Amino acid sequence: MVNVGLKLFGDAVRSQGAAVVDVDWRIPAGGDPALVAALVETYGASSEGVDRANAEVCRRLDSAAPVLSGLATALDVVPGMGERTLLHPGPPVAWDDVCDPLRRSARVAVMAEGWAATPEAAEALIASGDVDLQPANEHATVGPMATVLGPSAPVFVVENPQGGGSQGNRAFAGINQGPGAAPWFGVETPDAVARVVLLREAVRPVLESALAATIEAGGLIDVFSIAAQGLQMGDDAHMRTQACTNLLVRALLPGLVAADGDRGVEVARFLATNHLLFLNIVMAAAKATSDWASVVPGSTIVTGMARNGTTFGVKVAGLDRWFTAPAPDVGRALFHPGYGPGDAAPDIGDSAVLETLGLGGAAAAASPAVATFLGGKMAGAVAATRAMESICAGRSTRFRIPYLDFSGSPVGIDLRRVVTLEITPGITTGILDATQGRGQVGAGVATAPLAAFQAALLGVAESLKA
Amino acid sequence: MVNVGLKLFGDAVRSQGAAVVDVDWRIPAGGDPALVAALVETYGASSEGVDRANAEVCRRLDSAAPVLSGLATALDVVPGMGERTLLHPGPPVAWDDVCDPLRRSARVAVMAEGWAATPEAAEALIASGDVDLQPANEHATVGPMATVLGPSAPVFVVENPQGGGSQGNRAFAGINQGPGAAPWFGVETPDAVARVVLLREAVRPVLESALAATIEAGGLIDVFSIAAQGLQMGDDAHMRTQACTNLLVRALLPGLVAADGDRGVEVARFLATNHLLFLNIVMAAAKATSDWASVVPGSTIVTGMARNGTTFGVKVAGLDRWFTAPAPDVGRALFHPGYGPGDAAPDIGDSAVLETLGLGGAAAAASPAVATFLGGKMAGAVAATRAMESICAGRSTRFRIPYLDFSGSPVGIDLRRVVTLEITPGITTGILDATQGRGQVGAGVATAPLAAFQAALLGVAESLKA
Repeated sequence: MVNVGLKLFGDAVRSQGAAVVDVDWRIPAGGDPALVAALVETYGASSEGVDRANAEVCRRLDSAAPVLSGLATALDVVPGMGERTLLHPGPPVAWDDVCDPLRRSARVAVMAEGWAATPEAAEALIASGDVDLQPANEHATVGPMATVLGPSAPVFVVENPQGGGSQGNRAFAGINQGPGAAPWFGVETPDAVARVVLLREAVRPVLESALAATIEAGGLIDVFSIAAQGLQMGDDAHMRTQACTNLLVRALLPGLVAADGDRGVEVARFLATNHLLFLNIVMAAAKATSDWASVVPGSTIVTGMARNGTTFGVKVAGLDRWFTAPAPDVGRALFHPGYGPGDAAPDIGDSAVLETLGLGGAAAAASPAVATFLGGKMAGAVAATRAMESICAGRSTRFRIPYLDFSGSPVGIDLRRVVTLEITPGITTGILDATQGRGQVGAGVATAPLAAFQAALLGVAESLKA
Repeated sequence: MVNVGLKLFGDAVRSQGAAVVDVDWRIPAGGDPALVAALVETYGASSEGVDRANAEVCRRLDSAAPVLSGLATALDVVPGMGERTLLHPGPPVAWDDVCDPLRRSARVAVMAEGWAATPEAAEALIASGDVDLQPANEHATVGPMATVLGPSAPVFVVENPQGGGSQGNRAFAGINQGPGAAPWFGVETPDAVARVVLLREAVRPVLESALAATIEAGGLIDVFSIAAQGLQMGDDAHMRTQACTNLLVRALLPGLVAADGDRGVEVARFLATNHLLFLNIVMAAAKATSDWASVVPGSTIVTGMARNGTTFGVKVAGLDRWFTAPAPDVGRALFHPGYGPGDAAPDIGDSAVLETLGLGGAAAAASPAVATFLGGKMAGAVAATRAMESICAGRSTRFRIPYLDFSGSPVGIDLRRVVTLEITPGITTGILDATQGRGQVGAGVATAPLAAFQAALLGVAESLKA
């Protein structure tokens, strides 16, 4: 006899001498009537349509092949970018609610744009409402950690040829700001301002020229092809992009050497120390992909996850809105010497879009580096990938994990599974100083908050009934 | 009761009703009296001294930290290099016995040196005895596949500070000749000659300048530190050096961009397509290490393995001579389209020195790329590493294998184990066209010939009695 649920019943049978197997089953969603109704709706009456929609969303998440086509000025290419717009990560957030590292990064962006000369003046300008603070995600743009982009910022242009429109759909991301004193880590020193200017004045022209030469010689750059290779080389393509970055840099090498100008060596030094160059590029590719997938209606598949350090937002295909919950702490973490959980800002950045299509936490088992954050053995990383498998609808046909006999990483987070199992995505990420602007203080794996996924499922159920 | 050996005896006991465990035991070395005597000597009377010597050899193989210090002209730095010397891989071999791809490579070297203008003239010159054909290994130098170096060839200089002499001991290797039409693959077209000239005239000055700048900025380059990182990124550091090469290239980037001269872009193009740049460097580091280990007397640990395409040679610590057997075919192989085993030259090159200290086949389980040659799943690569473990005396403290929970790769091939178990090292390697000079036709894992190890053990036993 198999006893599902109430242990008392099993005990009663057992007392009568029969063999009993207890199965750990609970009423889903803690018995919350609205959530149970949403599960009944999406697994029941609407399941055929939902499954069909989900299959199409997963197909898009798994098959889009976005290409890196170059660099441009944000004002020139980012839709809806204004002369006084700043793009921030995560769901919309009022300036008063913005966390400390993101405030600092926004002030650096203001100073780098030349709108103010000091942090105090920058703060006053933003607080006055004279700056249009916008979620990057609403402008086809993504930024890791506390990245803030102004209109003069150079952005990578990534095109998804299969997306809507004659050119496909496009997405954008700034040039990764590199290690140390950089605003994406919540640092607002003069060096941090100088870093943003360096990217705009020096790195951009060299990289732009190198990209153009590389593309002329070998065609547009297939971003996910590099990511797939990186997974064979220990990257999860989120927390760790060392292999991907190096593959890209070696491909760019002739163009970098050929680039005009007298700042080539300075730029090369920056690139030589930045193993996360590829991060922003693969994020833009993931954004172009998820934007394409997100227009499929009637699905329970997550097409966006983003954090602003205050809230964690989930988007689901077919519904153009954020479902939010408070941003979580990064639970499984290693800290730089001298820092600890008390110094840590909550989870932040748009990079969690990578986890929607098989990278980052979904590909943890590909990465020895990620394993160091999960107990130090590969088993911990495998467990993270397995947890993602349990809540995903499909498997990647291109992102393969050597450690798991080259099986595909999980793709397509299904809200129904998340809510039923109460397992949420694990997101590999950095950790910023919460209050003092000292930059990155650690890294780890954040557990996405269940409440955001529950809210999203309720939203889907409501839309299905409408 | 445990029954070792004759099954008949076990059957007899079993017939009397007792529990019997059959253990598969055979008289070692097929019962060859000399080999059995050598095992008895080295495992018996001499075992204490042998074990002590072996521990010191393993310590050296595991702890040497050779550094890349620059590039130089072979004639200027390679000991015993003459104006008419050519260095070839593997044990000594008479010109008449040299295999086809190595003949071609030697003729290319003659043409690149300007000693002859055509393959025919080069052949005649070598056959006349006017060229001094020397095993590179006897001159502290190593070359992968069919590499032949003339006196004008640029060589990487690698120094082992712990070795003998005030500067430590040094070892050398040419610049990897890259993909396609290159003489190390047995190609002798005009393009192949041009490749050697390109290395000397264009690549050398750019790389030399970049290395000098990188070393000035960051110190001498710890070769095995890069290899250790590479193992975390899917390299075995022999057949596959993609990750190591890319780590090195990104480190060299500022120096490459800063290098003077008008051939920088041409050199960058060469580097962008050559993922084996690191191979020759790590081979030189392994050679410097094994040369240091090889002066320890009274050991049964292998400190050198090299092949010239005709014979496979083994060196053992303390004995300055080669023990040879016919070069094997590369058994577990994948061939380029249109090629098969019938096109394959026997195993060739000095790169097997890597397998003596925990890289290559010993680190197969670190490399998804190597796994593709061993059944396509990681289990095949793990089996290759496990086989090496069974014949090795120690474990690397620096070359760690993620897939095996970061345990160290096997180090220190013990002749006694090889002869007893009749398991020989597996060597990850490329495969050359046997007769027509079409270059690389495949890659795979070669199984070293047992006879060479048996001969080496006999040599050790003899020396212990002397």
